[in-house]
Amino acid sequence: MGTPSYNQLGIVKRHIERADRTAAEALGRFGSATVHEAMGRVGLLKPYMRPIYGGAAVSGTAVTVLLHPGDNWMMHVVAEQIRPGDIVVAAITAECTDGYFGDLLASSFMARGAKALVIDAGVRDVRTLTEMGFPVWSKCISAKGTIKATIGSVNIPVLCAGALVHPGDVVVADDDGVVVVPASDAVRVAEVAARREALEGEKRAKLASGVLGLDMYDMRGPLAEAGLKYVD
Amino acid sequence: MGTPSYNQLGIVKRHIERADRTAAEALGRFGSATVHEAMGRVGLLKPYMRPIYGGAAVSGTAVTVLLHPGDNWMMHVVAEQIRPGDIVVAAITAECTDGYFGDLLASSFMARGAKALVIDAGVRDVRTLTEMGFPVWSKCISAKGTIKATIGSVNIPVLCAGALVHPGDVVVADDDGVVVVPASDAVRVAEVAARREALEGEKRAKLASGVLGLDMYDMRGPLAEAGLKYVD
Amino acid sequence: MGTPSYNQLGIVKRHIERADRTAAEALGRFGSATVHEAMGRVGLLKPYMRPIYGGAAVSGTAVTVLLHPGDNWMMHVVAEQIRPGDIVVAAITAECTDGYFGDLLASSFMARGAKALVIDAGVRDVRTLTEMGFPVWSKCISAKGTIKATIGSVNIPVLCAGALVHPGDVVVADDDGVVVVPASDAVRVAEVAARREALEGEKRAKLASGVLGLDMYDMRGPLAEAGLKYVD
Amino acid sequence: MGTPSYNQLGIVKRHIERADRTAAEALGRFGSATVHEAMGRVGLLKPYMRPIYGGAAVSGTAVTVLLHPGDNWMMHVVAEQIRPGDIVVAAITAECTDGYFGDLLASSFMARGAKALVIDAGVRDVRTLTEMGFPVWSKCISAKGTIKATIGSVNIPVLCAGALVHPGDVVVADDDGVVVVPASDAVRVAEVAARREALEGEKRAKLASGVLGLDMYDMRGPLAEAGLKYVD
Amino acid sequence: MGTPSYNQLGIVKRHIERADRTAAEALGRFGSATVHEAMGRVGLLKPYMRPIYGGAAVSGTAVTVLLHPGDNWMMHVVAEQIRPGDIVVAAITAECTDGYFGDLLASSFMARGAKALVIDAGVRDVRTLTEMGFPVWSKCISAKGTIKATIGSVNIPVLCAGALVHPGDVVVADDDGVVVVPASDAVRVAEVAARREALEGEKRAKLASGVLGLDMYDMRGPLAEAGLKYVD
Amino acid sequence: MGTPSYNQLGIVKRHIERADRTAAEALGRFGSATVHEAMGRVGLLKPYMRPIYGGAAVSGTAVTVLLHPGDNWMMHVVAEQIRPGDIVVAAITAECTDGYFGDLLASSFMARGAKALVIDAGVRDVRTLTEMGFPVWSKCISAKGTIKATIGSVNIPVLCAGALVHPGDVVVADDDGVVVVPASDAVRVAEVAARREALEGEKRAKLASGVLGLDMYDMRGPLAEAGLKYVD
Repeated sequence: MGTPSYNQLGIVKRHIERADRTAAEALGRFGSATVHEAMGRVGLLKPYMRPIYGGAAVSGTAVTVLLHPGDNWMMHVVAEQIRPGDIVVAAITAECTDGYFGDLLASSFMARGAKALVIDAGVRDVRTLTEMGFPVWSKCISAKGTIKATIGSVNIPVLCAGALVHPGDVVVADDDGVVVVPASDAVRVAEVAARREALEGEKRAKLASGVLGLDMYDMRGPLAEAGLKYVD
Repeated sequence: MGTPSYNQLGIVKRHIERADRTAAEALGRFGSATVHEAMGRVGLLKPYMRPIYGGAAVSGTAVTVLLHPGDNWMMHVVAEQIRPGDIVVAAITAECTDGYFGDLLASSFMARGAKALVIDAGVRDVRTLTEMGFPVWSKCISAKGTIKATIGSVNIPVLCAGALVHPGDVVVADDDGVVVVPASDAVRVAEVAARREALEGEKRAKLASGVLGLDMYDMRGPLAEAGLKYVD
Repeated sequence: MGTPSYNQLGIVKRHIERADRTAAEALGRFGSATVHEAMGRVGLLKPYMRPIYGGAAVSGTAVTVLLHPGDNWMMHVVAEQIRPGDIVVAAITAECTDGYFGDLLASSFMARGAKALVIDAGVRDVRTLTEMGFPVWSKCISAKGTIKATIGSVNIPVLCAGALVHPGDVVVADDDGVVVVPASDAVRVAEVAARREALEGEKRAKLASGVLGLDMYDMRGPLAEAGLKYVD
Repeated sequence: MGTPSYNQLGIVKRHIERADRTAAEALGRFGSATVHEAMGRVGLLKPYMRPIYGGAAVSGTAVTVLLHPGDNWMMHVVAEQIRPGDIVVAAITAECTDGYFGDLLASSFMARGAKALVIDAGVRDVRTLTEMGFPVWSKCISAKGTIKATIGSVNIPVLCAGALVHPGDVVVADDDGVVVVPASDAVRVAEVAARREALEGEKRAKLASGVLGLDMYDMRGPLAEAGLKYVD
Repeated sequence: MGTPSYNQLGIVKRHIERADRTAAEALGRFGSATVHEAMGRVGLLKPYMRPIYGGAAVSGTAVTVLLHPGDNWMMHVVAEQIRPGDIVVAAITAECTDGYFGDLLASSFMARGAKALVIDAGVRDVRTLTEMGFPVWSKCISAKGTIKATIGSVNIPVLCAGALVHPGDVVVADDDGVVVVPASDAVRVAEVAARREALEGEKRAKLASGVLGLDMYDMRGPLAEAGLKYVD
Repeated sequence: MGTPSYNQLGIVKRHIERADRTAAEALGRFGSATVHEAMGRVGLLKPYMRPIYGGAAVSGTAVTVLLHPGDNWMMHVVAEQIRPGDIVVAAITAECTDGYFGDLLASSFMARGAKALVIDAGVRDVRTLTEMGFPVWSKCISAKGTIKATIGSVNIPVLCAGALVHPGDVVVADDDGVVVVPASDAVRVAEVAARREALEGEKRAKLASGVLGLDMYDMRGPLAEAGLKYVD
């Protein structure tokens, strides 16, 4: 949690380099699991981050916000920095389960064009958020409100749920979790993911017809070599 | 968890002072998040308390029961004390995840007029409970049954999921969590919540139209004073 | 977690004694809570094991697999040992939250006739699994993939989520959790469960009509004897 | 955690009724386990509360303080309310692991006559505290500092680590944990504990000589009646 | 947790096959880490099992006891089954943190010749236990006492902290944790551990003199083959 | 956990910029709590990181290593990159409690001049490590060994226990926890810490003499302004 850089508290960075929009959108179509594989199995937020409702699947460019425990003042500051297609990634300087975000802020974020919120803390008004169709991935749900007393920062690199997120990175989130792709690598990862995806359709058909992965992937030799023994 | 008063084990209090019914019903309409704010951000049960199905939203007056780990005998005792409009609040004297409550007890509670169960332990038969439309907020779901061997108490003050609940208090529960309002304060809190709610509709419309919270709440001055700096 | 028998690593047992199919199917109709009671309140997996989607209810015979952290190689080996009506029970030699299983493996498992997966780790592609109607009970959901580098074992006794599962045992899983019945005891437990179930319908009707459990179960005497006191 | 009484934020109660000093001291000699038994097995803080160094054993009268997450301002306010023989019991309005207390505050507390601190959060400077001989029971140890921005309350009833503590109650803390005895009940509990203790010396000698509890407590009959069977 | 065998509740097995005493003692000298390796990296209890004081290192043969949550009645039953050189392994049928064991029971266990207790729950009187020199590995420390109301079983196979323990198995416990060796395999594992240990002295000397593991184990080739790249 | 940079797997960086040695040593004298304050309350690893024995207090320059779950192969690779005065900071790509490090590796690390290990996983041989005087801060202690099968990286930025650590950064660790200071900022932070420390001695003397923090810090006015009320 928190920020990796101690001297950036109280700063709002207005101009950030956003990842290529086409790549960001393409990555969303592959989903978090495929993108995570295409990245080389890194970039994933911890699995305690769950969607507040099932079925949502989004991708977008990160605007980041660093908040203090029990204080959501900077949520209003980050709102102004949102551009259409962005996903707000909120980190807290210490562990906290309070409900930082509800339907009022969601109205504001949607008006600015935000596609989702990813927050390493709690949110509330989840029924209204679900009706509004504004997806959130969070650590928990809590009716506990927050105050507005301490400043944090916007668009600095943050550690959110065990992952480092830079402003402008691509965020891909769905029922399987949330993955972050560095902006500079989005195009390449999208290509790797596309190649991976192309192979999967064919494999799925084979497996569904009863072909075993043991045969399709030629695993019998390596398994025997590794010492696997069949007994009756 | 447990009881705050060591010398009340084995007691069933039959006559309790219930909160004003109109206030209890009004509080339910505002929801747990608004009520929690109107209370001054106290009275909330810990966020691990979750509904067994989404979308339920209730309020009612608490009848309380203190149970022992793995023993649900007192659930039958509390059933008799339920009056229409009550919500049963069940605390355990130690941490326990067993399934204390299922469809049989739910039939009984519903017949007595109970609106919901809030329990700092587990419940089971959740599919049937969902079909019956009897909402439960619990720590977990578990098929593990309990025995009937040790007596506890009914309608004493209990600590449930980190909150002190007196019999007769108002309980408000929905998708955001569970909040408790002291009976003597229910009318006042309902008024505060109503004022708060009245302001929110207008704010929501403004924010949805693109007005920033920064401007609507006049935050730019205080933020600058607190040291917030904008950089490029 | 893990295997109770240190010298069975790297073994695939091809012939296992499966529980009586009729008993296995009957047990599924009673559900995990009733079966757990009929067993004498043992055999339950820990309540952190949750279904990836609500409403699924299955029973079947266990084929077991022991995997290493972050390595799902043996999932392809166990696929070949599945017979129609089986449920795969996957244990890991250490705690792990990775996503061991997704839509490709599910296609393969379904083609082999598997009814479900129970895994003490994570799974992914949960939206697709839901669409396919392949139920999974797991510790968590995670997009994090696994490698194929180390062999484990298939059809040895495993410790899964705090329960010992032998290949061929009956697995009953639904919204309340997962319970395991030893193959040799399946017929007897099914009979106990049937008797139990027969009594419940009548009880439910009585309780729903307003009869109290206190009276239906003749509890007032024992409660008084245990020291319960009613006060005003 | 937190306060059970919503309308007492921002209050310092100067005059509190402290438990009988002789009883408080006597309770300390029996230790937390014996006192907890004498209370009827209630009054215990959760077992995550651990001493920062082994071997400390204290008792005293509670002065309570309710703090906000990450904010230790009220620690200076409570210091003034300490009288010789007191133990400060600190609760937080939300879960927090920050280090609220270190060697400077310990110097102040000791100068006022405090015997210990019990805090449902973190502390720091533990090596210096150990050298100073000021015992602390806490949820964790953390170098993370706190701010001084928000007021709480002093000498109101608080929920600390799952127990309700009123100012003036007796606190008994040692290597086994922390137990709270209501001020009004301290004399009676001390008497029960004394009787209990008197019996234990004799029992210990018998058991150490090889007499079995089975025989000393005449358990063989009840065990057989409960169904216990011996097999070879 | 719990028992793997549903129909063994309420049974005390008097005659058990204990592992070879010489092998049991030899295994203790190697320590839990070496024994765990010699076993093929299985047989370990979960790492939350910690000694109540540092420096203890024991081995012995298991007598097992299965207890109910909050109930230590069977502790007196198992005491009678202890023979000199035994270690009591206590499992609970559900998660529980209560203090099942204190100085009285320790006096009894020591009088019977027990070398230690391993318990998947809490213990108390830890200062006295430390002074008595009776080592315990437990999940936690808690002053909370238990009742004596429900029977369990003695000397049946139990699941303790994630490991299956049969009566008579060798238990090795020290500062690194607790490992269980099947009785039938104790001699073989002791031999493997002895060979392993013999090699370690020489390796330790080489590494201490500055030789790198990279060279001592000839790892540079395999690392390069695996793709490791050195950059400046 | 893990690495923030997806494309650096399988890399060993030989030349890193280490923080100023004098500043690194000075920071160690102030301790983790004071350094954390001097940093502006950032840079701290999560409080679950605990020393394996009390009283150790070190500072040094970080060499980092990224490992896979259950695999300590890279520990031998990082050993070669250690220079006198370094502290090894080990991160894992997923949560893991295995014992990655014992007395053999400690012999090697000490021979290379390492001052300590900080690892977001488990270690073993803790009694021997304590006798050798090699301090370790870890998430847990576990006898469970690891394999050597998969390569990771050395001297890349890693996320360890919630903090971002660059090779060459200053690590300060003691009984209060572990804090990381960016190499480029070590001199400045040491100066801030020195000024802070100078003030503390005087304050401690005042507080020990009975002066209240309320008066020493002139808090009475701000508290009253914040609304604090004294009652009897």
